[in-house]
Amino acid sequence: MDSMPHLQQPTMSVVQRSSALKERVEFYRKKGQRIAFVPTMGGLHKGHLSLVKHAKVTADVVIASIFVNPKQFGPTEDFDSYPRDHTTDVAMFEEEGCHVVYIPEVEEIYPPDFKTVIQVPALDGVLCGASRPQFFTGIATVLARLFLQVNPDVTFFGEKDYQQLLIVKQLVKDLGLPITVEGCPIIREQDGLAMSSRNKYLSEEERAMAPALYQEMQKAVQEMTSGKKIESVLQVSKKRLKDLGFDIDYFEVREIASLALVEKDITQTSRLFAAAMLGNTRLIDNIEVSLKS
Amino acid sequence: MDSMPHLQQPTMSVVQRSSALKERVEFYRKKGQRIAFVPTMGGLHKGHLSLVKHAKVTADVVIASIFVNPKQFGPTEDFDSYPRDHTTDVAMFEEEGCHVVYIPEVEEIYPPDFKTVIQVPALDGVLCGASRPQFFTGIATVLARLFLQVNPDVTFFGEKDYQQLLIVKQLVKDLGLPITVEGCPIIREQDGLAMSSRNKYLSEEERAMAPALYQEMQKAVQEMTSGKKIESVLQVSKKRLKDLGFDIDYFEVREIASLALVEKDITQTSRLFAAAMLGNTRLIDNIEVSLKS
Repeated sequence: MDSMPHLQQPTMSVVQRSSALKERVEFYRKKGQRIAFVPTMGGLHKGHLSLVKHAKVTADVVIASIFVNPKQFGPTEDFDSYPRDHTTDVAMFEEEGCHVVYIPEVEEIYPPDFKTVIQVPALDGVLCGASRPQFFTGIATVLARLFLQVNPDVTFFGEKDYQQLLIVKQLVKDLGLPITVEGCPIIREQDGLAMSSRNKYLSEEERAMAPALYQEMQKAVQEMTSGKKIESVLQVSKKRLKDLGFDIDYFEVREIASLALVEKDITQTSRLFAAAMLGNTRLIDNIEVSLKS
Repeated sequence: MDSMPHLQQPTMSVVQRSSALKERVEFYRKKGQRIAFVPTMGGLHKGHLSLVKHAKVTADVVIASIFVNPKQFGPTEDFDSYPRDHTTDVAMFEEEGCHVVYIPEVEEIYPPDFKTVIQVPALDGVLCGASRPQFFTGIATVLARLFLQVNPDVTFFGEKDYQQLLIVKQLVKDLGLPITVEGCPIIREQDGLAMSSRNKYLSEEERAMAPALYQEMQKAVQEMTSGKKIESVLQVSKKRLKDLGFDIDYFEVREIASLALVEKDITQTSRLFAAAMLGNTRLIDNIEVSLKS
């Protein structure tokens, strides 16, 4: 029995109060331990778990959080139906070797008279920010709040939400928080579909169609790097996706630091960013566009 | 010589870099000392010095800052001409017994690629926020930045900028910063004029007229508390001030917590708030309106 791996590590703590969380963090700090933070909205998949794996490589302690942030959902969006299965999520975090999971109630993050708004306007007006105006303001506000509660040394975000990653890096830098923000590669299903909590919304038919987005993105990048005009490649790709039933929000190339639109020549490292509705489900994805050699 | 009071305390440090500031703060923290922070834009007068006096009562160490914050000035406002006399200001802080004065360059607070914006919209749309739309956003942003750099236990603000005091309290609460925000009473000249760095802009004639604002405010409060209708009292006061040459921005009664306009009956503790241009100088002031007994 003693040799069972799950007995070799102490039981993971689940905390709901920021005061209890702070006690844990102070305990680790006093021991001189390096603390990693993996914020999530739950609905865990292998993408989230890869963040925990990355965190464990560089930190002594991994604190994850589950908080479905109301401020980043629009009035017609899926806040109420967003996947919430804390029991499964907590078991997955424990299995992965997290030390603490912080699951605050809404009032713990936003007391009734909460009024402050935090934004990174220079980065939040394009891509997902253009069609979801509250989205990144909600994210910047909740993450400032969580970072100040958790006080980690390092935090991990997936590159699937690439714009979010940029905004988090900028926010942490601008606030002068002593936190390193690490981006981690997109984790995909075997057929290439980027993992997402929202993939659960897809019907069987939609799920079968969904990988076509990534396939089309790969094709487009290949054509652009082989010298075809960006504009016409994107146009053809978008046409094909539409014909397959995707309702495209954006399908465009942007520079990776400024998110400036790339319309003619790729002169800096850039990425192809895509967002599309498939039925009632919003899919997003992005892949690197290498410089022409 | 040994009995000279100014030799009994160590020389005040002047620091320009947040890294140097943090070293000082860590030094004090390790000694278990309680740290007070008095942020200013310089142009010091007895109002600022009263904040230091209050700070010294409750803290072991007083850190003041001088930073003329470009983000809280509008394009046509007095950023360039705002009083900047660091030598005099530093001497005044030293005389008052401050331990550290932090005088950062603009780039230390806002590096060239700074992008984050912090707001408390529910409190910043009325009074000074209505006529100076960038004002409180600039204040919330710079103070979040300064608070996170200085990391004090307690901070002091004058009640002259009453709306600012409320916004700072809300900001600190919403960010969950472990800082107590203390408001201190308005300090006035002998003739009643509220002290302000901008009083230096007044011509001799304007300076002689300026106390009429406070006198009219006192008169108005007296009449309101003796039962006269708020609306008519304010109307008469504004008319009289206009006749004296004041260009009134606002002259109104608001509840002290929500800043909700009080137009009929005073049912909660409220204040009369006033702002007016006298020539090219903007004067603001506020006084309590007691509940009718």
